[in-house]
Amino acid sequence: MASPDTLSHPLDQALLLERVSEHTYQGSFPDSYANFIGPYGGIIAAKLLQAILDHPERQGDPLAVTINYASAVADGVFDVSARPTCTKRSSQHWQLELRQNGAIPITGSAVFAHRRDTWSDQERLRPTVAPPSDFETLRFDGMPRWVYNYDMRIIKGNMAFADKLPQAREDSESLLWVRDHPGRALDFSSLMAISDVFFPRVFVRRPAFVPVGTMSLTTYFHATGCELAAQGDHFLLARAKGNRFNNGYFDQSGELWGENGALLATTHQVVYYKE
Amino acid sequence: MASPDTLSHPLDQALLLERVSEHTYQGSFPDSYANFIGPYGGIIAAKLLQAILDHPERQGDPLAVTINYASAVADGVFDVSARPTCTKRSSQHWQLELRQNGAIPITGSAVFAHRRDTWSDQERLRPTVAPPSDFETLRFDGMPRWVYNYDMRIIKGNMAFADKLPQAREDSESLLWVRDHPGRALDFSSLMAISDVFFPRVFVRRPAFVPVGTMSLTTYFHATGCELAAQGDHFLLARAKGNRFNNGYFDQSGELWGENGALLATTHQVVYYKE
Repeated sequence: MASPDTLSHPLDQALLLERVSEHTYQGSFPDSYANFIGPYGGIIAAKLLQAILDHPERQGDPLAVTINYASAVADGVFDVSARPTCTKRSSQHWQLELRQNGAIPITGSAVFAHRRDTWSDQERLRPTVAPPSDFETLRFDGMPRWVYNYDMRIIKGNMAFADKLPQAREDSESLLWVRDHPGRALDFSSLMAISDVFFPRVFVRRPAFVPVGTMSLTTYFHATGCELAAQGDHFLLARAKGNRFNNGYFDQSGELWGENGALLATTHQVVYYKE
Repeated sequence: MASPDTLSHPLDQALLLERVSEHTYQGSFPDSYANFIGPYGGIIAAKLLQAILDHPERQGDPLAVTINYASAVADGVFDVSARPTCTKRSSQHWQLELRQNGAIPITGSAVFAHRRDTWSDQERLRPTVAPPSDFETLRFDGMPRWVYNYDMRIIKGNMAFADKLPQAREDSESLLWVRDHPGRALDFSSLMAISDVFFPRVFVRRPAFVPVGTMSLTTYFHATGCELAAQGDHFLLARAKGNRFNNGYFDQSGELWGENGALLATTHQVVYYKE
């Protein structure tokens, strides 16, 4: 559980859970993370991860988290089931379900692990870009509420309708600075939430607003606890790009780098789009 | 279930399951897909996917599959639990578990979906390379048995010890032609299995053989059934590259293109490595 003095931050309020049985937590989402329909996908992912982080049997740090979005989470309370399926010396596996009103709108899984010193190297280097102070905080008419919890500064690849493009772009790559707003020291929970911060690639490509929804999100954590601590509340550099849009579904892959250039997480998702 | 006339292929033999209750299937793995410890991760993933494909309640085609590897699957029989958690008009979500000897060595989830005609575009184009006939089938001393089920022709980025490199490479990118051996018409099951065919990126980087193991694998299917049918038993072009190797775990992202250049699947995994 978060300590009371951090609970003034909207993220910590949104992540609060109450343990109601061995592997079950109860919670709800505040309006502050509302998306067009239901809560922001990133806060759902972070809440399911939080159930493991709060669990007394948890060992190690997050390595891989997959969250599947079957249906919108409704207003009101729900149960999060976080069940350890296998615990070994160096890793622990979890199955996740969010249950509400007799349905299971969200499922997922997570792998936690202990790291130890090995040969290490980062292949995907942080692109060189101008500092956050050179860019304006994203604001547009009709933003869903969750966007106000982030300070996003688009370097490249804003939504096509925000740029009033007359026709489709040929490339969906976006590059942006992002951090929690108000500022908050980065931890695994906030990094999980930020990994869904990218606008749907179909909005970057086409100047048309169509229904969209993430179907499945996977985030790999590369950061050690020390790297997260060093990041503090500084901006992350975030990049995302789609690979293929085909008959109603596209995928995107993204990276999140810390201020010192360390690749803190890579993240992938497949997204439904209409038309 | 596969029809008897296809069962002469080792993949179809390896994918056989018997339904023993509503959401439970029983199976085992033939020695032909053995890896150094336990079966090849790709055949495990394909077997869990097969349980859904065989399930009478299944709707749509695979869109996203995540498989988590907690522990080696032992010789002998096991149960696969494939449980639909949410079925909607256009998508269906599943939770997966492989249970053996009172443990749960493998977990996973899958999203199935129906596609319909929409605006579509492929951003990640197939690299231009020489045809498969210009490259030799991979063979090396001490190959685990599963490798013989594939015809892999390395274009770039072979394992560093196969190339007898004196020191580490600076880049982990591999590019190869690959298909089932003997030839077999591509379907979702074989594409799932092939999505784990990439040798661990740490072996491409460093000329050292160290213990490794996939912790979590996620594959996104972009192919329609028509595209799979058009592919037949032709070679796929496969590319993979690591992003970061950090204190015992690295990630890799890969693509699988069909003969006509269509991106059939994208695939990601995070892998344990020692030293």
